[in-house]
Amino acid sequence: MKELEEKIRREGQVRPGNILKVDSFLNHQMDIDFINEMGKEFKRLFSDRPINKILTIEASGIGIACITAQYFHVPVVFAKKSYSINLDGSLYSTKIQSFTHNRVYDVIVSKKYLTPNDHVLIIDDFLANGCAVNGLIELIGEAGATLEGVGICIEKGFQDGGSKLRASGVNLHSLAIIDSMSDNDVIFRSQDE
Amino acid sequence: MKELEEKIRREGQVRPGNILKVDSFLNHQMDIDFINEMGKEFKRLFSDRPINKILTIEASGIGIACITAQYFHVPVVFAKKSYSINLDGSLYSTKIQSFTHNRVYDVIVSKKYLTPNDHVLIIDDFLANGCAVNGLIELIGEAGATLEGVGICIEKGFQDGGSKLRASGVNLHSLAIIDSMSDNDVIFRSQDE
Repeated sequence: MKELEEKIRREGQVRPGNILKVDSFLNHQMDIDFINEMGKEFKRLFSDRPINKILTIEASGIGIACITAQYFHVPVVFAKKSYSINLDGSLYSTKIQSFTHNRVYDVIVSKKYLTPNDHVLIIDDFLANGCAVNGLIELIGEAGATLEGVGICIEKGFQDGGSKLRASGVNLHSLAIIDSMSDNDVIFRSQDE
Repeated sequence: MKELEEKIRREGQVRPGNILKVDSFLNHQMDIDFINEMGKEFKRLFSDRPINKILTIEASGIGIACITAQYFHVPVVFAKKSYSINLDGSLYSTKIQSFTHNRVYDVIVSKKYLTPNDHVLIIDDFLANGCAVNGLIELIGEAGATLEGVGICIEKGFQDGGSKLRASGVNLHSLAIIDSMSDNDVIFRSQDE
């Protein structure tokens, strides 16, 4: 998605440790008009799939998932990190390693909201090593639901999460794939629009 | 908001410890069409204020804030819990006690995204003792921004967060205020619509 690549070039900041800061529009301050454009693009990319639910993980995926869900006319379910006393004991759970926060999270979804009838699109802001997406795919598997696709805003193509998912047959679309980045420039992988 | 009261009566579940579970539509699974109706109502209630930013706190406030922001045509900023290495050192911060999770969080907002030019509407899913909202008001104060109002989906009117905020002059609107609740019934405070 050219508009996203341009926005990353304009507003993104590359920091040591392969960190790309896009907190001016995506994951701290959120540019809602722009996220609507990404939501429309996800709808275009996954329009051939019988999606009836969008699954994401707290926190920064939630807003993008909610805006995107408007184009699919489906509910959002967000997986929760760590155990919350407001949730039933009746849960699917898995563990996810977060490199950003350097810790392991328990991630849970209530069995009520992920079932064998669900055809699920996973939405998240970033894909790097794939830990979060793989955790969500595990939860979908536990529930006996069907994974219809994975929609990512920004994929770090120089880490192997995306290539492993594609190799395993997952219907993955990333709106922007970064092949390399430095202080001076961000190089995007060319994709058919 | 009558539709919200009816939805709470229909789908909400009261649990020991004054817990109201509304995770079928608000804070785990999210009914996006319904949240749009709440967003429209927030716009109606705060239409006289010069709001240019919506502030919320991760995680369950984010989706509601993003949907609501579409009616105000403003960006969302979500305060983050705990220190994230993806954020600058240039932060406003405060501490918030979470009774749900029985712990104290550091809550942060980047100074870039909350400034003296901002006229802020706080949006959140629940108001009980007011710890989260008071923390966000503190961040707004640190930034020298202007608090224009606080919009809450569900206020637990039997806890004192709401009455203290109103007594201190905060322009607070809760779409539903619960005066009491039990296994059998939820009693709402009547409000002018």
